[in-house]
Amino acid sequence: MDSTYRNIFKWGDKREEHIAPRMKELIRDKFGYSDDDFREKRLPGLEQVRVDKRPALKPRQLDFIRSVVGDDDIVTDDYSRARFSCGKFYGELLDLRLGRVACPPDAVVAPGSHEEVEKLISYCSTEHIPVIPVGGQSSVTGALKAPEGGIALDLTKHLNRILRISTVNKTVTVQAGILGPSLEAELNSNGYTCGHFPQSFEYSTAGGWIAARGAGQASTGYGKIEDMVVALRAVTPAGVIETKDYPRTAQGWDLFRLFIGSEGTLGVITEITLRIHNYNPRDTASAAFIFRSFGQAVEAMRKVMQSEYGKPHLFRISDPDETDIAFRTGGSHNSMSDKLLRRLGFRPGERCLMFVTVEGERDYNHFVLKKIKTTVRKGGGMFIGTGAVKKWLDQRYSSAYIRDPLMDLGIMTDTLETAVTWESLMKVWSSARAYVSRRPKTVFMVHISHVYENGANLYFTFLSPMEKGNERDDFATFHRGLVDTIVENGGSLSHHHGVGRVLAPWMESHLGESSMKALKAIKRHFDPENIMNPGGTLGLTQYRDETDR
Amino acid sequence: MDSTYRNIFKWGDKREEHIAPRMKELIRDKFGYSDDDFREKRLPGLEQVRVDKRPALKPRQLDFIRSVVGDDDIVTDDYSRARFSCGKFYGELLDLRLGRVACPPDAVVAPGSHEEVEKLISYCSTEHIPVIPVGGQSSVTGALKAPEGGIALDLTKHLNRILRISTVNKTVTVQAGILGPSLEAELNSNGYTCGHFPQSFEYSTAGGWIAARGAGQASTGYGKIEDMVVALRAVTPAGVIETKDYPRTAQGWDLFRLFIGSEGTLGVITEITLRIHNYNPRDTASAAFIFRSFGQAVEAMRKVMQSEYGKPHLFRISDPDETDIAFRTGGSHNSMSDKLLRRLGFRPGERCLMFVTVEGERDYNHFVLKKIKTTVRKGGGMFIGTGAVKKWLDQRYSSAYIRDPLMDLGIMTDTLETAVTWESLMKVWSSARAYVSRRPKTVFMVHISHVYENGANLYFTFLSPMEKGNERDDFATFHRGLVDTIVENGGSLSHHHGVGRVLAPWMESHLGESSMKALKAIKRHFDPENIMNPGGTLGLTQYRDETDR
Repeated sequence: MDSTYRNIFKWGDKREEHIAPRMKELIRDKFGYSDDDFREKRLPGLEQVRVDKRPALKPRQLDFIRSVVGDDDIVTDDYSRARFSCGKFYGELLDLRLGRVACPPDAVVAPGSHEEVEKLISYCSTEHIPVIPVGGQSSVTGALKAPEGGIALDLTKHLNRILRISTVNKTVTVQAGILGPSLEAELNSNGYTCGHFPQSFEYSTAGGWIAARGAGQASTGYGKIEDMVVALRAVTPAGVIETKDYPRTAQGWDLFRLFIGSEGTLGVITEITLRIHNYNPRDTASAAFIFRSFGQAVEAMRKVMQSEYGKPHLFRISDPDETDIAFRTGGSHNSMSDKLLRRLGFRPGERCLMFVTVEGERDYNHFVLKKIKTTVRKGGGMFIGTGAVKKWLDQRYSSAYIRDPLMDLGIMTDTLETAVTWESLMKVWSSARAYVSRRPKTVFMVHISHVYENGANLYFTFLSPMEKGNERDDFATFHRGLVDTIVENGGSLSHHHGVGRVLAPWMESHLGESSMKALKAIKRHFDPENIMNPGGTLGLTQYRDETDR
Repeated sequence: MDSTYRNIFKWGDKREEHIAPRMKELIRDKFGYSDDDFREKRLPGLEQVRVDKRPALKPRQLDFIRSVVGDDDIVTDDYSRARFSCGKFYGELLDLRLGRVACPPDAVVAPGSHEEVEKLISYCSTEHIPVIPVGGQSSVTGALKAPEGGIALDLTKHLNRILRISTVNKTVTVQAGILGPSLEAELNSNGYTCGHFPQSFEYSTAGGWIAARGAGQASTGYGKIEDMVVALRAVTPAGVIETKDYPRTAQGWDLFRLFIGSEGTLGVITEITLRIHNYNPRDTASAAFIFRSFGQAVEAMRKVMQSEYGKPHLFRISDPDETDIAFRTGGSHNSMSDKLLRRLGFRPGERCLMFVTVEGERDYNHFVLKKIKTTVRKGGGMFIGTGAVKKWLDQRYSSAYIRDPLMDLGIMTDTLETAVTWESLMKVWSSARAYVSRRPKTVFMVHISHVYENGANLYFTFLSPMEKGNERDDFATFHRGLVDTIVENGGSLSHHHGVGRVLAPWMESHLGESSMKALKAIKRHFDPENIMNPGGTLGLTQYRDETDR
């Protein structure tokens, strides 16, 4: 096995190893890159992984764990420890490229059953051994570090099965470590879909979706993960919480909801029951529209969501910069149709793309899409066919792969996202734009991709050349300023990425002191010895290795 | 003022003071009532209220409270204390008829602002004075008793205003003590509706809807109250929790959700932001259907909910007994149309009514209703016009009024309700039927009125002559057995009435020990001195006056 840092930080399979010519062109234009810049591979991480931090687990502790899971399901080698020391946050990828493994667990343990998880959690609580539940490791918030060592609990190795599909209740019960494609394939063959397609779909688990409180790309119709969870089973140091699959109750507040967004800090989610949806992909109706301005597009989007004639499933707007880049990298820039669009007043730097799908019953899809077309037309948008949506769907999981070759070119790139009400959307958007515009040579793309009656999310992507030799601080400073800007102007800390350790420093000021105290009190009840994903996650406990940021 | 017990227990205004002739006929038939039985008014509660329990508040405590709210907003007279000692649970009404005021508060206090509530809660926590937040007093779960005295916090007197309607976000922000009709009137005049219409609508508050976790009659389309709450502000002994109105977030678990179903045990909800809906009542599409059996009707209902072509707003099925009684009391029994229905195989004792409305955009309503009609037809149902639905809507809040004249006749009548998955629905229904059938002279009506993709509720109404001289125990025993039956066969403790003190004894066995411990830990954090609605609510603390049941 190739035990390099590169092997850890690379996203998924080999596709997107190379940057497409049109993207190269863009980089040349925006960042002034020369041919030489494209030749050199920056911080490639080709060294063999070495972990300096000595494991703290005692031999008798390792023996106990071994007695629970068996010899094959506990590993303590450097490479495994490094591999389980992080998710896919830009700062973590950068650290790996710099040969830094700051927060490795002492061991990686793969439990084989809910009961084994119970034994492990009980033991670790008594012995004060930190436990970090790990799914697909696609976290972009530093939620998977082990600053206090302990064990990384690999839930994907064994706890990855579908336990039951109820066609009567239209629900599926799964083990937490099942990966998206595995779940979806089985559901599809039964005529269903999970409806949850985050960009990380290929490398994320049902448990991770819930722990991080994710959203799929078609969440406007299918709902965010918290709208899909019906019941769950979780092992906490304070016992097992197992909730029932009633559609709704009035018997106190919902305990299962505490685990949605808990990011591993309360316990280990082992089983989940989710609502599922009918799978009829050929019946999907879709449309792409173009608007003359972001404001017009947003207003039309709001009208669609508030008209009560049904909702789209996928619903996106790209802001003018993202739209321009889509035109350039998609090859439409300066094409015949581009020239026609300009003549019609859809100008570069102003125009915005909107994508829609409706994925319910066939007639419903056509009905809703027709209604949306009418609303869009009244709002100044123009229907431009369905091709662009299909193209987008075909590459829906691809953008994640482009980060590695960009970083190879010395380009830092990260995403941030927030939830906003309709009232604050334009302010958050323009403030974030203004903030980023102060950094030279920076590409900033914004889209809206999860939409509600009362607001939406804003999703920010930035690309900018790294500051050589000062890569970490430069990124941290720029990132911090962008988060500040979003929050100060009325955005939430996160809509669906979660908080982890990266956004933890903002939690108390954002939620308020009483709320933070309440979160901490709940944490203390479930995890009195603070073994569950300790060291900073969600700001519930102190991040002991501050030098790591 | 007429300070009788009767004045306290009577529901609302004077309508339904008399029992309609067809209902009388039914009572004659089912219970063997004679003309004499109809003449006598049983336990009419016409005595002047007297409260034996001495208030425990000290003069200096009363002085402090007076200094906060002013002289006019604290009362300590017997009648007020009795009036605020209960909700509208059958057991409470019976007690009032028997001249029992077992659990009165020491005083009734009406705060004038959020800030006054803060002062009161802080003081009461320090002084260990119980606080029972009170809205419209329509609780049917014994949630408003004051077994440990203290103050009843009347939120309806002053904290009853709309603070803001955001037409952009399509939300309304209200003070917790606003009553349904007042909220709805203001929304209607702005082109919106709250969409939340519990049977108690006329005498319940927004804060109460949330605290008890209610559902409106059209919840299938508009959602249950927990689907409508966007943000809230609550005063707890551990500080103010104030959440923001983002559509969704991923910043830890939602704290505002702890207050949904909290039944006054964590703090006082003072302000609420709710999603609102477009108000176009003339565009509503509606239909009534009849089925040959309950099983067929349920199956068709499930298909409608799982077809993904849009959903009804109001969606109800009456089981055969309830359908027969609707035919009898509605005057259709033995009519020409009844005879025709029988010839078509829709037989009394078997047939079931289904009511549907769709209340969105006009074209959407027609589209969805057409789809529903197709599903219903395939499922063996028959469209029987729209008249019955309109008639039902006209009297939608009336059934609550009939309880008092029934009790005047010595008839006990109460309702229970539960949430079930589709898989367990028929079992819970038939088990409950079997249980009740063992009690002679008992009318038992069941309907489904809140429907989801993965299940629905079951709503049980029973009527049976009281056992003279043993009214309390007879009811308690029968009630207990019915709850046991529901829960043992797979139903939840409640779908939308809540738990209060009546269902509290089932909480631990139903939720499990770990879950109950977690609820209690959360309670302890927010209310360390146990002043918030103490004494048994939700089973969080002990019910000290056990003799009261």
